[in-house]
Amino acid sequence: AGNTAMDAMRVSLRLGAELGLKKLYIKDDGLNPTGSLKDRASGVAVAKALELNYSTIACSSTGNAASSCAGNAARMGLRTVIFVPERAPEGKVAQLLIFGAKVISVRGDYRQTFELSRDAIAKYGWYNRNAGINPILTEGKKTVALEIAEQLSWNPTDWVAVSVGDGCTVGGVYNGFHDLYALGMIERIPRILGVQSTGCCPFVDANGGELVPAEENTIADSIAVGVPRNPKKAQRAVSASDGRWVAVTDDEILDAMRLLGRSEGVFGEPAGVTATAGVRRAVAQGIIKPDETVTVISTGSGLKDVKNALRAAGKPFSCAPDIRSRFC
Amino acid sequence: AGNTAMDAMRVSLRLGAELGLKKLYIKDDGLNPTGSLKDRASGVAVAKALELNYSTIACSSTGNAASSCAGNAARMGLRTVIFVPERAPEGKVAQLLIFGAKVISVRGDYRQTFELSRDAIAKYGWYNRNAGINPILTEGKKTVALEIAEQLSWNPTDWVAVSVGDGCTVGGVYNGFHDLYALGMIERIPRILGVQSTGCCPFVDANGGELVPAEENTIADSIAVGVPRNPKKAQRAVSASDGRWVAVTDDEILDAMRLLGRSEGVFGEPAGVTATAGVRRAVAQGIIKPDETVTVISTGSGLKDVKNALRAAGKPFSCAPDIRSRFC
Repeated sequence: AGNTAMDAMRVSLRLGAELGLKKLYIKDDGLNPTGSLKDRASGVAVAKALELNYSTIACSSTGNAASSCAGNAARMGLRTVIFVPERAPEGKVAQLLIFGAKVISVRGDYRQTFELSRDAIAKYGWYNRNAGINPILTEGKKTVALEIAEQLSWNPTDWVAVSVGDGCTVGGVYNGFHDLYALGMIERIPRILGVQSTGCCPFVDANGGELVPAEENTIADSIAVGVPRNPKKAQRAVSASDGRWVAVTDDEILDAMRLLGRSEGVFGEPAGVTATAGVRRAVAQGIIKPDETVTVISTGSGLKDVKNALRAAGKPFSCAPDIRSRFC
Repeated sequence: AGNTAMDAMRVSLRLGAELGLKKLYIKDDGLNPTGSLKDRASGVAVAKALELNYSTIACSSTGNAASSCAGNAARMGLRTVIFVPERAPEGKVAQLLIFGAKVISVRGDYRQTFELSRDAIAKYGWYNRNAGINPILTEGKKTVALEIAEQLSWNPTDWVAVSVGDGCTVGGVYNGFHDLYALGMIERIPRILGVQSTGCCPFVDANGGELVPAEENTIADSIAVGVPRNPKKAQRAVSASDGRWVAVTDDEILDAMRLLGRSEGVFGEPAGVTATAGVRRAVAQGIIKPDETVTVISTGSGLKDVKNALRAAGKPFSCAPDIRSRFC
């Protein structure tokens, strides 16, 4: 809504100063139609499935890719089959069901969920929206970079920070800036800060080298991917942009959730605010200098994971309906 | 995101046909910055509070007005005090706390919550964002009508359907169209369909006459207002536009939630989809004719009330991570 102080792309009024930066922009992709950056990929995937005359589209997902797939498919009359690990938050599962998807909750981790979806898609001949397989998804995701560049008048910030799970999103971010650079529309590609949770950080541990399967032990469920399916895209994004990898703890993630909410009115899910926690850490470690400009992408809405939000934010103050109550 | 099939204002591809209409538009205000139409009012209220040099803004709310007030205030560095009835859904309370509001959960109904906030605001001298008191809020809300008119190239639909609780929103919708009509920018004011839940429908019961306090017994918490604070604005909106009042049951609301999700990829909260349920009923009753055009406003995101969404949508199918599992 144009009459509020808040837009999907906004210059930080107070958060930048709190992080020790002069200029910080926030790209809030939690405001997309189904509440996450994944709508960018799903929109393209649904269009492609229709072009190829499929009637069913399927994927495995920790949640956001799934709900965006289901929402975009519902709108275009495609059937969807979604495989989620049983730990997927309620809000995301509710969205899937409301969008009319057939939801299969797999009693296993993300790797097992992914493998079951892969086998089922092969067996039943559905259109495959899995990011590790389908290259068109990165094409959709790169639109976030195109929008950032356009919204900054083709003069993007020194750094762009993004949380990383499977690796497809950070790959798309790099590809978008790369294309604009190749076309001469921007003068340089921003350095990409890839951020993971210490509870699941195979890319940070590898630091450009060989990946080792990691545990999936973090509240940032959307990026809890022990065996990433787009490792090359992700590693190239950070290395080719002269970027860096950092990991942050779950406590730092909860702290970033409060910080974004209290200073900017942005309510992000844990994985969505992980990039913000990463910027704070990168500034503290001297990776990002105080006079460098930064865009931080918030990849999903905090309403998708209310349990963790309540964990970050505490409880309300209960009182009787009486002006003599103590509430101040 | 411009690359998806989904926008905040969209022509229905399949829902209109399901409701028996040739042309239906959906205005999804669940995509506003904090997830509801209330951002339109809160943006204006926060600007006004700053202009008048207040440092604290306060209101009572069943949830959406509160979270939008807190989010918009956080962004501008204002302190917020919010009074909610204890039945407010978790998602809305989580949002408030993340935005740094002081949240006072009142052990009583909405009327008691409102009265406590009124007394506390008077006692402590805070800026008052209560819709029954502050006339500037309607000015913010009318922007939804301005946007609808603009997005339909200044040729709005025959009807605009909106769910009604306190009455401020429907008043704003009418005012927006009225202003455009007075300025000669549109040729007629759409007829307004005011929709309430049978569990709390003082306006429908009054049908333009004297209001009697009603019970607050509906899943549509955002419009469960037994004693509306903007009765005249609401009644004038419907009567002056030659509109109609209709009430729908909670079952019809849950049905509308599934319908919007499955046919259009719109995930609305119960109060948000009440207008859609009302359109279906108005068509069935012959109030809206099949060849008339309709815009339905969805006033809030379904992610704010996951419990009722799960009630509408059912549960996922659980299976072992094995291709031999039965999941189709």
